[in-house]
Amino acid sequence: MNKIFNVLVENRSGVLCKVAGLFSRRCFNIDSLAVGETDSPEISSMTIVSSGTPRILEQIEKQLNKKLDVIKVKTYESHQAIARELILVKVKYNKSNRKEIMEICDIMKTDIVDMSKTMMILQLCDTPDRIKLLLAMLNQVSIVEVARTGTLALLKCMESEN
Amino acid sequence: MNKIFNVLVENRSGVLCKVAGLFSRRCFNIDSLAVGETDSPEISSMTIVSSGTPRILEQIEKQLNKKLDVIKVKTYESHQAIARELILVKVKYNKSNRKEIMEICDIMKTDIVDMSKTMMILQLCDTPDRIKLLLAMLNQVSIVEVARTGTLALLKCMESEN
Repeated sequence: MNKIFNVLVENRSGVLCKVAGLFSRRCFNIDSLAVGETDSPEISSMTIVSSGTPRILEQIEKQLNKKLDVIKVKTYESHQAIARELILVKVKYNKSNRKEIMEICDIMKTDIVDMSKTMMILQLCDTPDRIKLLLAMLNQVSIVEVARTGTLALLKCMESEN
Repeated sequence: MNKIFNVLVENRSGVLCKVAGLFSRRCFNIDSLAVGETDSPEISSMTIVSSGTPRILEQIEKQLNKKLDVIKVKTYESHQAIARELILVKVKYNKSNRKEIMEICDIMKTDIVDMSKTMMILQLCDTPDRIKLLLAMLNQVSIVEVARTGTLALLKCMESEN
């Protein structure tokens, strides 16, 4: 089972380590993690995607709620959420594959955000599945470097009003 | 001083905690963190933005390089990098402020990715400064929830070829 944890925490040194430790002590891999500020600079938001049995995921939620630095925990399954990832990919190009790369960018609505005579940086913000697809499509092209965020997610609008 | 660390690590449970611990033991706040998979599923990439004196940042880089699970560390300053963040914002709207929200979305090239009768989810992928600007502009509107990634960064194309 895949579960998304949206955790609001105090923006303090060490909090990230405490939360990450909670997962790793149970030998639980964090599939993806995104940490960022919220509209208040004292509060950070963490979006954690983890997988495991419902029982253990429930335990983690309870443990998170007990931590002093944790302000609020919300959990939901992936189908209840709007999920997005961001990826930056640096690729090497030449005259022979430039057209192919540009076609892939066109199909996938990917932006070219930086360029030199031999390299370009591509940017895509989309669902996790489409990010995977872009990487698969670029696999024939020579990828130099990849930077990718974890999954970011919010509960869909309809459900949050129930 | 603001420094960006691009760290390639083994995708294993506990690695995140080790890296985060390295920062927190020196009472160093991680300003922003993005963790995601790369094109190889066994390797994760971490983008960490931290600030401090050049000496301490240098120490952190050395310590990172010593860790067994760390494959590669690259560091650079923000002006050398293409930096992007992703944000999802859920806002409450009504007849009187709907037009204003749509105008803000139009100016900031923000997408509306989900909607109900009273709520919408906005999505923007842009530079950290423009993400801040969007939040400031939306401040008059009632923000319900924010999910935001840390800064994602890659060395600019021109510099990487030198």
